[in-house]
Amino acid sequence: MIDLYTWATPNGRKVSIALEEFGLDYQVHAVDITRGDQHDPQFLEISPNGKIPAVVDREEGRNLMESGAILMYLAEKYDGFQGDDRWQTLEWLMMQMGGVGPMLGQAHHFLRFNPGKAPYAEERYAAEAKRLYSVLDKRLRDREYLSGSYSIADMATWPWISRYEWQGINWVDHPHLLRWYLAVAERPAVQRGYNVPKFVNEIPIP
Amino acid sequence: MIDLYTWATPNGRKVSIALEEFGLDYQVHAVDITRGDQHDPQFLEISPNGKIPAVVDREEGRNLMESGAILMYLAEKYDGFQGDDRWQTLEWLMMQMGGVGPMLGQAHHFLRFNPGKAPYAEERYAAEAKRLYSVLDKRLRDREYLSGSYSIADMATWPWISRYEWQGINWVDHPHLLRWYLAVAERPAVQRGYNVPKFVNEIPIP
Repeated sequence: MIDLYTWATPNGRKVSIALEEFGLDYQVHAVDITRGDQHDPQFLEISPNGKIPAVVDREEGRNLMESGAILMYLAEKYDGFQGDDRWQTLEWLMMQMGGVGPMLGQAHHFLRFNPGKAPYAEERYAAEAKRLYSVLDKRLRDREYLSGSYSIADMATWPWISRYEWQGINWVDHPHLLRWYLAVAERPAVQRGYNVPKFVNEIPIP
Repeated sequence: MIDLYTWATPNGRKVSIALEEFGLDYQVHAVDITRGDQHDPQFLEISPNGKIPAVVDREEGRNLMESGAILMYLAEKYDGFQGDDRWQTLEWLMMQMGGVGPMLGQAHHFLRFNPGKAPYAEERYAAEAKRLYSVLDKRLRDREYLSGSYSIADMATWPWISRYEWQGINWVDHPHLLRWYLAVAERPAVQRGYNVPKFVNEIPIP
């Protein structure tokens, strides 16, 4: 049994989607970041950076924070979703961890949640969002998924792309990424993992 | 022989430091990001995201982009610097990839290179820099290095901390991190790796 500490955000969804894809038993603990649950000392024992998601693998007595580490851990322990080439999978997982996630996160902050506070920053992150979509689109021009077959790199990237409505994206410019986005959205495990924690929202995938 | 495509930035230094720590033969190819070399189609073949660093491992015929993926690759191939616990090492490497690097990078952009353009963003990233330093400081309170013994997590984090002068940091608040910073700075491999590519700058570690 795995304990999942999470909230309904792109980083949280990476791990709930992965747990569903691997078909694992897990228990959800909602960490309501809107009321500051992430600063709770007990949560900080599991996630010293004070961020969701985090997991406890009871079987191994192991705590793990950081979605990228958790995805790699599940892929190794349960030997799956490593794509056609493990290092290409990790390369695109790292591109998500260092680029897609943090930079689209800044786009959300400035474009969606704080419009008007820093027009220079809004332009900066809208441009970077567009650049990242172009890089992903090019990668998917001749591949079904980021590492050939469906992998943890796709699971990490997809929940960020599912917030495209907040990122000033015009899908006409990114047809291969759109094809990928819709294909991943069709997966039953993705649909189940998207709505975790369940009581926060039961909303259709955009 | 490993080909290293890099420039004198914190992300570039992670890998030149690692190559020095592992004692590997490598050939440096300077990618001058100040004149746009990262957009060169030949470089994009190796690094589709258009970022340094990237490597080619000639022995294996493998290209790899993303500093986090390269560090994990070296640690596995040459079986070293994985810390006291491999998953804790990867957890803190991911914390660097998703937090320390991207957020201190934004601090550099707004505080150092574009002061005055977005005061709201300057405050945001100065506060996040301080928070990240506090998380690292707490982690190092009862550990010599981020994963017990010196590892790729330290190699990834240190070059970002070495830019503390750009981040509005007061070291008085972070004594454990300062102790760690100075200990890593003493390592001959770190000093050699810091000044790669050599002709860009030969500057003392701050």
